[in-house]
Amino acid sequence: DSKLKLFSLNSNNPLAQEIAKEMGIELGKSSVKTFSDGEVQISIEESIRGCDVFIVQSTSAPVNEHLMELLIMIDAVKRASARTINVVMPYYGYARQDRKARAREPITAKLVANLLETAGATRVIVLDLHAPQIQGFFDILIDHLVAVPLIGDYFSTKGFNSEDIVVVSPDHGGVTRARKLAERLKAPIAIIDKRRPKPNVAEVMNIVGNVDGKICILIDDIIDTAGTITIGANALKEAGAKEVYASCSHPVLSGPAIERIDNSVIKELVVTNTIQLSEEKKSPKIVELSVAKLMADAISRVYENKSVSILFD
Amino acid sequence: DSKLKLFSLNSNNPLAQEIAKEMGIELGKSSVKTFSDGEVQISIEESIRGCDVFIVQSTSAPVNEHLMELLIMIDAVKRASARTINVVMPYYGYARQDRKARAREPITAKLVANLLETAGATRVIVLDLHAPQIQGFFDILIDHLVAVPLIGDYFSTKGFNSEDIVVVSPDHGGVTRARKLAERLKAPIAIIDKRRPKPNVAEVMNIVGNVDGKICILIDDIIDTAGTITIGANALKEAGAKEVYASCSHPVLSGPAIERIDNSVIKELVVTNTIQLSEEKKSPKIVELSVAKLMADAISRVYENKSVSILFD
Ligand SMILES: Nc1ncnc2c1ncn2[C@@H]1O[C@H](COP(=O)(O)O)[C@@H](O)[C@H]1O
Ligand SMILES: Nc1ncnc2c1ncn2[C@@H]1O[C@H](COP(=O)(O)O)[C@@H](O)[C@H]1O
Repeated sequence: DSKLKLFSLNSNNPLAQEIAKEMGIELGKSSVKTFSDGEVQISIEESIRGCDVFIVQSTSAPVNEHLMELLIMIDAVKRASARTINVVMPYYGYARQDRKARAREPITAKLVANLLETAGATRVIVLDLHAPQIQGFFDILIDHLVAVPLIGDYFSTKGFNSEDIVVVSPDHGGVTRARKLAERLKAPIAIIDKRRPKPNVAEVMNIVGNVDGKICILIDDIIDTAGTITIGANALKEAGAKEVYASCSHPVLSGPAIERIDNSVIKELVVTNTIQLSEEKKSPKIVELSVAKLMADAISRVYENKSVSILFD
Repeated sequence: DSKLKLFSLNSNNPLAQEIAKEMGIELGKSSVKTFSDGEVQISIEESIRGCDVFIVQSTSAPVNEHLMELLIMIDAVKRASARTINVVMPYYGYARQDRKARAREPITAKLVANLLETAGATRVIVLDLHAPQIQGFFDILIDHLVAVPLIGDYFSTKGFNSEDIVVVSPDHGGVTRARKLAERLKAPIAIIDKRRPKPNVAEVMNIVGNVDGKICILIDDIIDTAGTITIGANALKEAGAKEVYASCSHPVLSGPAIERIDNSVIKELVVTNTIQLSEEKKSPKIVELSVAKLMADAISRVYENKSVSILFD
């Protein structure tokens, strides 16, 4: 029988701690520092020979630091004779570069998948990839968790009447996700339909669906600079929405995001802790839900060789 | 007949410009920026279909940024149908992690080689690897240039008498390099022989060879925090050296390096431009030699399918 070992790197130590607590285990001992010149220095400080090793790391900003930390850790774990190397990546950075949108662009999401495999990962556990197709970028096993149930449960506790709410997708790409949340909340959906009449002319926003007098719940996978979501929230208000809530799996929240959210009509922004929020990013409007139990269950099931898909809804 | 295209990334643009000038060509057009969240955004802005592409990038600090820039650029070049992808890495970061010095450590220099291959590099041109064995970490072609001739030529112009100088290796690992420089200068060598009598007891420094009344020229591959080199220089002075010069291929110069050099007995520190020196690192004691001509010759010879080893001495 092989032993389970759970390690944390530097991107999201509080989440890793919480996962360990959920599982009733201690985090593995390792040292992840940098040398004077900034090169990552890792050493694993307990035997992992023959173990099933799980490494928790989100490739959130600084993405290149966090990714290299992860690749170097995988290399160290591999050379320390682990049996399996399971990468737990609550947030998968570079996911938006998942196709050639223009000529002579990279497909970095695929590159990252290849790098993880090359380093020696044998399995990857992720949550809400920007596009589910990224699963196919891997030749190793991948488990794809979703945050919709968590977000749905949270809004259920608010005690809204189903007839009063509408789940809104901020763009065409997110309709499937909105549909899933709507099902859980037994609510209808609406879509913010943006189009640019001509190049270099401002976008026109049109709401498909009825939001008048309703409590709107916007849902997206990533909120980055918060432009789309705050402009969308305005459009909903103008179309008669009573209140606007927003939610996402991954609070990237870069650049002007917090300022935009604080100054927006959004009443509450519900996020998960796949990305650790720095102190400057802690707005009073933000509610953080923890994916620790979900991640802990997935890790336990992978370790026990049980199906993980049961966690998908 | 395929065309040569030379691209620069962000680690050492002045060197790339100089190489292009030596070759009488223009740098290829590309855009290497970051998105708001810090993810690298690259696009190549001219056709490179069927071309032999050379990408100039040192993986100096910030090493993880520069390495990811390079990997993503390689991916973009590959997907743009280049014929060959030649990585010109004047400084190869992570080279000091080239073996397991202790249990459960990574071998990051090998990981980096694998990552470059996985991204799609077909050939690598490097200069003064920390250990020449790193060449064997690659399954693709690698050309290994050396800076000793450049450094030797510089000291030759000083007009010292051969009998007055001695080339000094700051440790046992660098004796081969010191020997090569000594041959060019027709001078003898000396070695700084450090040993620790017991654990947790200060190192004892012993000079093997005669330095009394001599002009000492220390040579190393990398000068990082400058501890070894400045302490070594002191030891040489105490052993009667008349003057101490220092030289290296790669001026990493992190942490207290510049302060230590400025306050040391070292008269002049001769480095190359494999690593771009930021403004704070420009000490009046530092003399920079350019590897541009050497790199340009290597690129031309690779492109023309001629032997590169002729450049090795
Ligand atoms: N880190 C990033 N920040 C902002 N935009 C990005 C980022 N990565 C990729 N993109 C762009 O976002 C687009 C993909 O987003 P989407 O259309 O929502 O799938 C691509 O065309 C990219 O140019
Ligand atoms: N970036 C770095 N800065 C300082 N020391 C390093 C770095 N990378 C590796 N090392 C250490 O340097 C040693 C190798 O240096 P050397 O013995 O000179 O080949 C290894 O034992 C590493 O622990």
